[in-house]
Amino acid sequence: MSFYDKLSPANVAPLWRARGLLPKEPSTPAVPFLWPYAEVRELLLEAGGVVTAEEAERRVLMLMNPGLDGRPAATANLYAGLQLVLPGEIAPMHRHSAAALRLICEGSGAYTAVDGEKATMEVGDLVLTPSWTWHDHGNETDEPMIWLDGLDLPLLHKLETHFFEVTGDARQALTVPENLSARLYASARMNPSWVDASTPYSPVIAFPWKQVERQLAEAATVSDGTPADGLLFEYVNPFTGGPVMPTLSCHMQLLKPGLHTDAHRHTSAAVYHVVRGNGHSIVGGERLEWTARDTFALPAWAVHEHVNASGDEDAVLFSFSDEPVVRSLGLHREQAVERQG
Amino acid sequence: MSFYDKLSPANVAPLWRARGLLPKEPSTPAVPFLWPYAEVRELLLEAGGVVTAEEAERRVLMLMNPGLDGRPAATANLYAGLQLVLPGEIAPMHRHSAAALRLICEGSGAYTAVDGEKATMEVGDLVLTPSWTWHDHGNETDEPMIWLDGLDLPLLHKLETHFFEVTGDARQALTVPENLSARLYASARMNPSWVDASTPYSPVIAFPWKQVERQLAEAATVSDGTPADGLLFEYVNPFTGGPVMPTLSCHMQLLKPGLHTDAHRHTSAAVYHVVRGNGHSIVGGERLEWTARDTFALPAWAVHEHVNASGDEDAVLFSFSDEPVVRSLGLHREQAVERQG
Amino acid sequence: MSFYDKLSPANVAPLWRARGLLPKEPSTPAVPFLWPYAEVRELLLEAGGVVTAEEAERRVLMLMNPGLDGRPAATANLYAGLQLVLPGEIAPMHRHSAAALRLICEGSGAYTAVDGEKATMEVGDLVLTPSWTWHDHGNETDEPMIWLDGLDLPLLHKLETHFFEVTGDARQALTVPENLSARLYASARMNPSWVDASTPYSPVIAFPWKQVERQLAEAATVSDGTPADGLLFEYVNPFTGGPVMPTLSCHMQLLKPGLHTDAHRHTSAAVYHVVRGNGHSIVGGERLEWTARDTFALPAWAVHEHVNASGDEDAVLFSFSDEPVVRSLGLHREQAVERQG
Amino acid sequence: MSFYDKLSPANVAPLWRARGLLPKEPSTPAVPFLWPYAEVRELLLEAGGVVTAEEAERRVLMLMNPGLDGRPAATANLYAGLQLVLPGEIAPMHRHSAAALRLICEGSGAYTAVDGEKATMEVGDLVLTPSWTWHDHGNETDEPMIWLDGLDLPLLHKLETHFFEVTGDARQALTVPENLSARLYASARMNPSWVDASTPYSPVIAFPWKQVERQLAEAATVSDGTPADGLLFEYVNPFTGGPVMPTLSCHMQLLKPGLHTDAHRHTSAAVYHVVRGNGHSIVGGERLEWTARDTFALPAWAVHEHVNASGDEDAVLFSFSDEPVVRSLGLHREQAVERQG
Repeated sequence: MSFYDKLSPANVAPLWRARGLLPKEPSTPAVPFLWPYAEVRELLLEAGGVVTAEEAERRVLMLMNPGLDGRPAATANLYAGLQLVLPGEIAPMHRHSAAALRLICEGSGAYTAVDGEKATMEVGDLVLTPSWTWHDHGNETDEPMIWLDGLDLPLLHKLETHFFEVTGDARQALTVPENLSARLYASARMNPSWVDASTPYSPVIAFPWKQVERQLAEAATVSDGTPADGLLFEYVNPFTGGPVMPTLSCHMQLLKPGLHTDAHRHTSAAVYHVVRGNGHSIVGGERLEWTARDTFALPAWAVHEHVNASGDEDAVLFSFSDEPVVRSLGLHREQAVERQG
Repeated sequence: MSFYDKLSPANVAPLWRARGLLPKEPSTPAVPFLWPYAEVRELLLEAGGVVTAEEAERRVLMLMNPGLDGRPAATANLYAGLQLVLPGEIAPMHRHSAAALRLICEGSGAYTAVDGEKATMEVGDLVLTPSWTWHDHGNETDEPMIWLDGLDLPLLHKLETHFFEVTGDARQALTVPENLSARLYASARMNPSWVDASTPYSPVIAFPWKQVERQLAEAATVSDGTPADGLLFEYVNPFTGGPVMPTLSCHMQLLKPGLHTDAHRHTSAAVYHVVRGNGHSIVGGERLEWTARDTFALPAWAVHEHVNASGDEDAVLFSFSDEPVVRSLGLHREQAVERQG
Repeated sequence: MSFYDKLSPANVAPLWRARGLLPKEPSTPAVPFLWPYAEVRELLLEAGGVVTAEEAERRVLMLMNPGLDGRPAATANLYAGLQLVLPGEIAPMHRHSAAALRLICEGSGAYTAVDGEKATMEVGDLVLTPSWTWHDHGNETDEPMIWLDGLDLPLLHKLETHFFEVTGDARQALTVPENLSARLYASARMNPSWVDASTPYSPVIAFPWKQVERQLAEAATVSDGTPADGLLFEYVNPFTGGPVMPTLSCHMQLLKPGLHTDAHRHTSAAVYHVVRGNGHSIVGGERLEWTARDTFALPAWAVHEHVNASGDEDAVLFSFSDEPVVRSLGLHREQAVERQG
Repeated sequence: MSFYDKLSPANVAPLWRARGLLPKEPSTPAVPFLWPYAEVRELLLEAGGVVTAEEAERRVLMLMNPGLDGRPAATANLYAGLQLVLPGEIAPMHRHSAAALRLICEGSGAYTAVDGEKATMEVGDLVLTPSWTWHDHGNETDEPMIWLDGLDLPLLHKLETHFFEVTGDARQALTVPENLSARLYASARMNPSWVDASTPYSPVIAFPWKQVERQLAEAATVSDGTPADGLLFEYVNPFTGGPVMPTLSCHMQLLKPGLHTDAHRHTSAAVYHVVRGNGHSIVGGERLEWTARDTFALPAWAVHEHVNASGDEDAVLFSFSDEPVVRSLGLHREQAVERQG
């Protein structure tokens, strides 16, 4: 028996023949990709009539990165989906290790309840359902509601640390006033001194668009932000100043009319959602044309730059990212590069 | 020569004869005390005609705690003063180790410049001049301006760590747009990603009253806060969630109509300033009647409770405190006690 | 075209048909497994005569978890290998994003150089080569050296954030005295005040066995540790008290004679290496018999308990783990369970 | 009534007439000063025969800084004293807000018990009694014991936050094995994973000299430390890497033969105690000659440099300092200056 034939039965393998074990640079099969809202929306509305009542509570079209071989993922670590909730529908209460967020695209007045608080939702609002918090949602209005779901599910799958629990109850008990957290932190940089600040995630679970919009507008009167990002704001946990959840960060970004940002790349990936405006982004050499409500994927380490095509309107981009993951693990790296476009 | 006679020449002393070296409980010579705004204001206006031009840049009446023997202090560690700035007056740029804040009582439009940023000030605004930041201020309007100054100066005197510097220049160069920091953090719990967050104090130096007022109003619709404090909010450093400066914390507190808070005491002291409303506080057994713009001292470890005397109007109290000092040093202690009133 | 046929071309997929997306509990294909030292050592020595000179610098037999389909991994996130370095051999300087450690099994006096410091190595010593630190090693003695390599490489592959760099130089310049870091922290809980403590990893790169042995011996005279772990010590970064590297923690554990630990499980996985003693561990229902220098894998969430089979000798287990990863990301969970053995 | 006459009755004072309120640089009445051990020891032994039985439990000669007007303080914030405990004497259990430490000068085997742990003490050992921990001590040996006491008592007096409590019991119950904490952290940079690390002070309460000595000796073979301080080590809390208590830091410092350190000054003050060697320090222009066991005071902001007068013996200086206080409050400042000697 030759030397090499003995190795496999002993459950060992020769490092000196392992090629590619230490790649020089990150590469990912995920590709730059854009999902036009109009197209997904049409399918989603069609799904409204196709799925059964039971299926309806998960009426989400998952955005599948074409490079990821059918895994439900928009980038290597991030999941994104568009969900339609029709009048009268609910999703029963449950919790999971995966961290989740939603950004509202259409409709007004449906709710998500998280750990005893009911948050009603308007277009542009960001609502968090952090890891292992009980949540349920429903649409008590008379119009359909569509939102973008963002999760760290592909990361959790890789890390093999996912737990899931249901109780069988449709709704959780509401223990605090409606929209409590949005209202307690409405305007000023003051924190309520009586709130338990020891959770590993933001105790603010709803970030209303009307507050975001006001802040963007005021900031734009005094700053241009940076050449690489324009006016890039991070949603933060008010008690730490850090990301809203340990695995996902959320940003809102204003690109002034005509802005063409510098190009750079970083070891974190992101999913972008266009809140307002028209333009394009050049991601890994691909030109992605976008308009309001489109969603696109930025794979890790892909060079990217954004262009607001309008000469007189701002463009506003929401994004969520796995940046807290690479930062926590000491793996964050960023590089400015030449523009591609 | 007897044994005890030998000790002093050797610069030693017998611990076994040192009484009171380890007191059972804190006590302070500072007393509960209130300075009525109307009275101080009248003297301040009179001072407007008395002081010389040179003296005018420091036209402040220091609030002297009657228990502190002529030391310029409102409580053992905290300084408070009311300053009048007449149209056309300025205070040349300088910096000091003492941390300072001002809360605007009257007037509109005078400015404080801090580290390159000019902040214009309205009634109710809070403006910080953190330790060792260059600052200057002036009144370019045509009406007098009165504000409350708060400093940690008595603490710094005790710690013997005070530095002071002037350049001889009247004004510092303004390197960023006017009111930058207030506007960058105007509304939503988002932080500008490009701001240097490494200072030991809040990079937000101005907290406009209009934002504070909005947050108090919204919070009051969903919460009563706590029985001990009502709706007590802390101004925070957005990048840490902690106090705005390492030695001073600032709070704004809404007492709903008729509220009589529970009584408690703590090892930190505070200076209160009434922004709105009428009522009284019972501090260390003393009843202090207050109305808008009055200032009063809460000595450390003094039992206290607040009463909003109105049945239909909110009362709003601003306060600054040395709580960060006792917390940082592991000396914070709090105790609920029986009400005195 | 039916509804479902339209989805794939649009790069979306129906969540309501995605089974297993939210598993109730973590599961991993990795299996409990033990690699007997005697067996791997024999193959390693045989490899000494088989590999070419160029290959020799990576003469490592990787420990392949049988459940992981030929991926070079001992658990889902952790790599382990046994390396043989013959007299005169070196590995040229390089650096990589993956964090690495080695625990010495046999031989005395070979070296690893890390960021300018040459650390000579004895049996039982732990040496770190943190992420992106330049390192090289060599054997200038006249006897073979065998050590256990531990890396977070499978995790880095999943996260797609790996960088690698070589310079072509065989050795790095040594800029500080030999064995500096071990000696600066030799004994007492004192830190050198002049060392830069701002690295994200421990500035101590070598932890000599003679110090570890002394600490275990002294601790055993005053404590039994805990029923679940015996005397479990974590190697720490002296400037934070936290894990030695952001992705890997290292432990040394003494099991007193006859100890049978309680059973538990946690969301972190580990690789164990037996430094001393004989016994067995029951891992996920499998009984793994071990003796000195054997290595075994504990998959994540596998129930486990350890037994020191000897009635009069201590057993000592070294282990490295991805616990800092699950902790940083808010995914740590632990559960006590019934013993299986 | 003139304007100025009205101010005092109103409890206000004019800032524009307050001189010296904002000093340009710190100054302290405390002076550089040295207490020769031989002299204090002789008085202490004489006190052995003078004090009553009841007084004996506090048979301490406090080191009185001549500049501080009879306040029991060695520097503005720091208390130091030399205590004699004769065979058979004890100090009943008590606790106080003031943080305390002792460094053993003479004798062997007396004990301090802290929070359930009895620590026996040898010459050179450092023992902590952190704020509000129960402690008692006694001498069960047949020889006298002398140690240096260090406290933050003057600071606590200034801050008016001192609490004190006795139970009437002579001794506390011992709940853990003797010398537990010294032994659990004996040698290696490993932490016991089962120890509660959430206290605001070091859970290690005794730092044996034999460990310190070993570390100094090893470090001296590979490093000279820095020109300003020689080999300056800080005793640390193993779970944070920070100072052992929130208000006091402790250092041990080796000056190689003939070393004359650079001069500098800082806003923290310190008390030095000579463990070994002969030399002198130039402090604020005063030359303080020292030999083993002498104690001397370094006031805040005083320029200082140390000289080991011996050409072949190391000098070793212990010191405790209020550096954590000025650091926590953002008031730390340091300046290199010209040597004075």
